[in-house]
Amino acid sequence: MTTPPATERRLIEIIRRAVRKASGVRVGIGDDCAVLEPDAGSLLLATTDLLIEDVHFRRRWATPTDIGWKALAVNLSDIAAMGGRPRWALIALACPEAVGLDEAEAFYAGVRALASEHDVTIVGGDTAASPRGWIVNMTLLGEAVRPPITRSTARGGDVIAVTGSLGRSAAGLALLEATPAPRGVTAAEATDVTTAHLRPRPRTREGQWLAAAGGVTSMIDLSDGLATDLGHLCEESGLGARVELGRLPVEATVHAVARALDREALAWATGGGEDYELLLTCAPEAFERLAGGLAATIGTRLSAVGEMTAAADGVRYVDAGGQPIPVRAGFEHFVTGRARV
Amino acid sequence: MTTPPATERRLIEIIRRAVRKASGVRVGIGDDCAVLEPDAGSLLLATTDLLIEDVHFRRRWATPTDIGWKALAVNLSDIAAMGGRPRWALIALACPEAVGLDEAEAFYAGVRALASEHDVTIVGGDTAASPRGWIVNMTLLGEAVRPPITRSTARGGDVIAVTGSLGRSAAGLALLEATPAPRGVTAAEATDVTTAHLRPRPRTREGQWLAAAGGVTSMIDLSDGLATDLGHLCEESGLGARVELGRLPVEATVHAVARALDREALAWATGGGEDYELLLTCAPEAFERLAGGLAATIGTRLSAVGEMTAAADGVRYVDAGGQPIPVRAGFEHFVTGRARV
Repeated sequence: MTTPPATERRLIEIIRRAVRKASGVRVGIGDDCAVLEPDAGSLLLATTDLLIEDVHFRRRWATPTDIGWKALAVNLSDIAAMGGRPRWALIALACPEAVGLDEAEAFYAGVRALASEHDVTIVGGDTAASPRGWIVNMTLLGEAVRPPITRSTARGGDVIAVTGSLGRSAAGLALLEATPAPRGVTAAEATDVTTAHLRPRPRTREGQWLAAAGGVTSMIDLSDGLATDLGHLCEESGLGARVELGRLPVEATVHAVARALDREALAWATGGGEDYELLLTCAPEAFERLAGGLAATIGTRLSAVGEMTAAADGVRYVDAGGQPIPVRAGFEHFVTGRARV
Repeated sequence: MTTPPATERRLIEIIRRAVRKASGVRVGIGDDCAVLEPDAGSLLLATTDLLIEDVHFRRRWATPTDIGWKALAVNLSDIAAMGGRPRWALIALACPEAVGLDEAEAFYAGVRALASEHDVTIVGGDTAASPRGWIVNMTLLGEAVRPPITRSTARGGDVIAVTGSLGRSAAGLALLEATPAPRGVTAAEATDVTTAHLRPRPRTREGQWLAAAGGVTSMIDLSDGLATDLGHLCEESGLGARVELGRLPVEATVHAVARALDREALAWATGGGEDYELLLTCAPEAFERLAGGLAATIGTRLSAVGEMTAAADGVRYVDAGGQPIPVRAGFEHFVTGRARV
């Protein structure tokens, strides 16, 4: 350690410096509660995520800045899935005694970097010592148009679509966990997929645009993997789904990393999790308008990958010839699975 | 273990059962975010607290129900300190794999018991496996009258007052940690102080009554101990304080436990922390009205313990003769100190 232990007092000073007074903040850091002023008439969105060392990340490959970035990113993605506007964050951080102030500062720098991109203000939090490992809890508050877009309102016959591409994050995780590093992955490919895992870019602009565009019937973010999250959407909407695996957007980089590691890109795309893309449904006639508008306005691709069916059909994955392909659901963390409630 | 491991899926079912649709909740558990509808024109309060096994509690003496209760209680106390009305809670829980479903259920039962007393709805959360020990994060949202009562607005010459009594929680913690159990403490005394530590009763009704009564110039909750929290209030208000130790409300039970353990009741009352009483300031002429009203309306005692002075005087503790008495600030957890930001 080149810096003294991160005492709580000094941590608070770091947090206070990280905070700026912003719109809608009457009282920020430094009182019993944050006092916030939501826009008149808006609905309030609230989401919380707990990230634990060796469950959700490893310090061997995740820097404090990565951890801070990702803690906010996963919550931003939840707000994006409701088509909401993120506004205020509360951060609880517990580090082992030996963690230096420079590392704590780097954590908040990671939060701040992503927060400023999304116009989020850090308004409060908590600090503690941890007996073992980093523990981070982030709560994010946002505001939504009325009515917000939920996961329970898909309709039979709707197109299923996803933003961006799938499997990059899982490819990155596989590469970060691989020892020794595999041959045959270029530095550019490695950077592409590990960055997708360590510094995901939540689709908040896309979510807001899609909610405002009209025609999106349901939406969820892809945190636990397509198979799991589509399962949630089907369950909440009381429907089934049919996904054509050949239409899943998977980048060449992901295929290259999969070959080098002797793994399957398609398994990452369906079960890998942590892509933080948006999965949505819309009427078939609305799809082209939404895809064209999203590409033109924000530059993000929207791919149709299947359609909503009756509940009795369940969730099926098929190849180009319509033959069913078994797909393993679920995204397993190092210790065990995890789910948002 | 007599029950199977608490898998995440089953945990979520437990949480869902624990949740009821309530006023101001458009979407509760089961979507990416909770969707809430604050009362028109109200200010939003937000506070978060992280509780970690062997930092904030020990499983040797805290049951899962105690942990759930206290996780909510410490946040309710923060809302109380702003004179606010608590409304919605988000709970993140991580347990070791070996924890049974019955223990997870007991945790939520503890949350629910206190939540229903205070009309709080659980609207979301997160679950994860923990590599070691219980980890709980609770975020509580509430609403406040305008303007909310902060800790930065005390005035020189104001009376300093506290609700209830001080040192019970620290006495309870000392007793819980004492092995072997000391002689000379009756069962009734032991129950009184350990319950104060394990199941604190936050002063939300008192906080709302005091805020509405008018005349309270600043308020803070006593989570880290009088010396620390009064220090915060003085710092934020740019003032000093003078506290008469003989006027601190300390119950006979606390004195009895202190004698049995050969400890000092006054040290618990000033530095013990976790009493979750309210510390407030008011104009001298307002004190009798506030104390009388609080006693008559809610049955809670309000004790004047000192007065706000100039910043240059610092925070002084004096005996009945006005002689200064050194008081140790700070509430130390098992691993290290902790502070709210």
